Amino acid sequence: MAVNTTQIELLRKLLRHGAKERVVKTLSKFRAADLAEFFKHLSPVEQRAFIDILYSQRQAAYTLLELPDGILEEILDVLEIEKISVLIKRVAADDAVFFLSLLDTDRADQVMALLDEPTRQQIERIRMYPAESAGSLMTNEMMTLTDSMTVAQAIEEIRARAEEHEFIFYVYVVSDSGTFVGVVPIRRLITAPPDTRLQDVMAVNPVAVKATDDQERVANLTARYNLLAVPVVDDQFKLLGVITVDDVIDVLTEEATEDMYKMQLLSDEDRVYSPVGKSIQRRMPWMVLNLATAFLASTVVGAFEATISQVVILAAFMPIVAGMGGNGGTQTLTVITRGIALGELGYSDGIRTIGKQVLIGLVVGAGVGIIAGGIAWYWQGNPFLGLVLFLSMIVNMSIAGLAGAAVPILLKFLNQDPALGGGVIVTTFTDVFGFFAFLGLATVFLQYLV
Amino acid sequence: MAVNTTQIELLRKLLRHGAKERVVKTLSKFRAADLAEFFKHLSPVEQRAFIDILYSQRQAAYTLLELPDGILEEILDVLEIEKISVLIKRVAADDAVFFLSLLDTDRADQVMALLDEPTRQQIERIRMYPAESAGSLMTNEMMTLTDSMTVAQAIEEIRARAEEHEFIFYVYVVSDSGTFVGVVPIRRLITAPPDTRLQDVMAVNPVAVKATDDQERVANLTARYNLLAVPVVDDQFKLLGVITVDDVIDVLTEEATEDMYKMQLLSDEDRVYSPVGKSIQRRMPWMVLNLATAFLASTVVGAFEATISQVVILAAFMPIVAGMGGNGGTQTLTVITRGIALGELGYSDGIRTIGKQVLIGLVVGAGVGIIAGGIAWYWQGNPFLGLVLFLSMIVNMSIAGLAGAAVPILLKFLNQDPALGGGVIVTTFTDVFGFFAFLGLATVFLQYLV
Repeated sequence: MAVNTTQIELLRKLLRHGAKERVVKTLSKFRAADLAEFFKHLSPVEQRAFIDILYSQRQAAYTLLELPDGILEEILDVLEIEKISVLIKRVAADDAVFFLSLLDTDRADQVMALLDEPTRQQIERIRMYPAESAGSLMTNEMMTLTDSMTVAQAIEEIRARAEEHEFIFYVYVVSDSGTFVGVVPIRRLITAPPDTRLQDVMAVNPVAVKATDDQERVANLTARYNLLAVPVVDDQFKLLGVITVDDVIDVLTEEATEDMYKMQLLSDEDRVYSPVGKSIQRRMPWMVLNLATAFLASTVVGAFEATISQVVILAAFMPIVAGMGGNGGTQTLTVITRGIALGELGYSDGIRTIGKQVLIGLVVGAGVGIIAGGIAWYWQGNPFLGLVLFLSMIVNMSIAGLAGAAVPILLKFLNQDPALGGGVIVTTFTDVFGFFAFLGLATVFLQYLV
Repeated sequence: MAVNTTQIELLRKLLRHGAKERVVKTLSKFRAADLAEFFKHLSPVEQRAFIDILYSQRQAAYTLLELPDGILEEILDVLEIEKISVLIKRVAADDAVFFLSLLDTDRADQVMALLDEPTRQQIERIRMYPAESAGSLMTNEMMTLTDSMTVAQAIEEIRARAEEHEFIFYVYVVSDSGTFVGVVPIRRLITAPPDTRLQDVMAVNPVAVKATDDQERVANLTARYNLLAVPVVDDQFKLLGVITVDDVIDVLTEEATEDMYKMQLLSDEDRVYSPVGKSIQRRMPWMVLNLATAFLASTVVGAFEATISQVVILAAFMPIVAGMGGNGGTQTLTVITRGIALGELGYSDGIRTIGKQVLIGLVVGAGVGIIAGGIAWYWQGNPFLGLVLFLSMIVNMSIAGLAGAAVPILLKFLNQDPALGGGVIVTTFTDVFGFFAFLGLATVFLQYLV
């Protein structure tokens, strides 16, 4: 966005000529995310020269953090262990863990060996928590003060420690026993009388997540309560760290991608920039599974070979039944999956929701069925063909509503991801039942169709 | 989440008995989003009683803002004009505009007539901006100070005005001529020497959006630069307002829903909680369009009626060709659409991306084609049937990669929404070309198939 073609060409030229001073001067205008933008357009050799310059300017770590995971992984693969260890020392513990997660085990161990003991311990603490847990996202660089402190003392503390704390907007208050008891926005420290105790200005009953909670819960709480940072606690409500809203935004984006991907049985790592070989490797097994479900529909059609052999034109209408059912089912699936993700399903219970979607399918099916049936009648000059298409459209669109709603609700009820494979499951249902209804009805009315 | 069944039952009982005092006491423990949660489980009569109590506690406005749009619309429809005008006076101008947008024009005008002149003007200013623009999201309740002020003066100002400003984490700095020149985090006011001028502590070259920019740009900038609030300026870089991160989170969620919905030709307002009639009304026209595309595939099959009449079993394999192509195309479409939304496409240009997806489709098609062809050969005892299925699978999966990648990239290139209708367009392509390849090849090899 903020980077244009002229700037890219200039940077490439300066890098090729090794004009380090001028590169540094040019870069001072940009933020980390903009610097990351340049990477897309550089050759591997230029990328290396660019990293060395960023590195000398202490800008490498935060720039690299803005790259997509796949691209960052490739860069880290060829960077020296020593350089990676310096990068890691310059970032917060949660980002350090993220860097380490992109290295293979051997290299990660070598990097860890180069770190000082306190840094290593901090990293180990966060690494204990599973990926996508609140603990894996938190930073321990928050300002924690005790509730008996006065506002004046708090301000003194902030002055003394402000340099180490980049992202201070709240002060977190703990009791003498270390229990997390409240939050004070920095603003309130300015407006409150200096001799007030923190316990008298803090917001009590603070919202917090457990370190083992899923990141989706963190994102939902942030959105729900309009938070800027989510405190993370242990079972005894002791404060372990905070998750800042910028990390929550990344989680929200990631979770939305995950939902879309899971519906289509795509691997999270199958991205626009992924190498072709990796994408193929990731899609193949799922497509084989998909093939197995497609053969189910195929056997249904095969069972009606005799009917089709007598009324061959039936084959021409099969794509209409399958196509409309498939799209109708996917529509319902999208509405329900998204409704579950946004917590909207609670506004009406599962059974009622399924019923509603079946009813919608039935009415929409009748509507498009009349049109499709009419066209079939006019095209082939046979009212019974139109009737068969009309009726099977109603059946199939109702099945589409049923499967599209019931599959994610059932998955949710079984504590599975409601999006998982929904697209494939639902189209299998609509294919199988759609063909069964269409060809079955055609068999019933066979004498009027030949 | 934070509301359980026992609490709901208690609230309903208290509401039915008109025990207002006890309801108020019970509610004090909850935040606005939790109070909104209760609404889901109340009857219309109970909802009314509940609103009256929230209203008397000045909690109604922020609770109602946490409800899904559809539910809120129903509630506002039956609420008195006077009550709505009081709600509107209690919220920021952007939220006021949102409330008004859910009313029909007549009622909105009546509400506006009840407001005082300054409130009405503020609302009119925000209403000028189109829906989903930065201007429509901004609040003008930010703290703006001039760059020649000292830190001590700034703190004095904040003390004086803190009550009106709920969400202060930054001070926005303007020059004497009113141009927006910098940002100071509140924290820095605490740590900087009191006699420093703001121009010496502020971060210069602040990120800002224009009031007419799309909300998607606001969300992308926030994610990109890890902002807590995005300043909104006019063409002269005068500060008009700020958009806070909690609103940005809502935008991100909304945009993700929109992308998923557009791919399936769903209306934004077709939600889990929508009345059946409205959902039907919104889906019907698109399903008719969908029917038209399905008839395209149907005519392709119809053109090969003679071939099918000689080898009826071909009809049984049609769902495999269509199903695999449809799913493969939707997979590619999901990867590309999401890649565009996340700004990842820049890492490789359009033509190369399309080429990659065609190659992936070709290889995956060959892989599943061997299996499908093998099964067809074994099942029907005819190697040529297997060969036809194998070849058409390669063709169709390549088409799936081509259409899945080219449709969103082309839409983006034409400045259209890359997600718009992609699912339907892509499956139409895979159906038409898949059937053409499969039945065309079968016609070529016809003498070996009968």
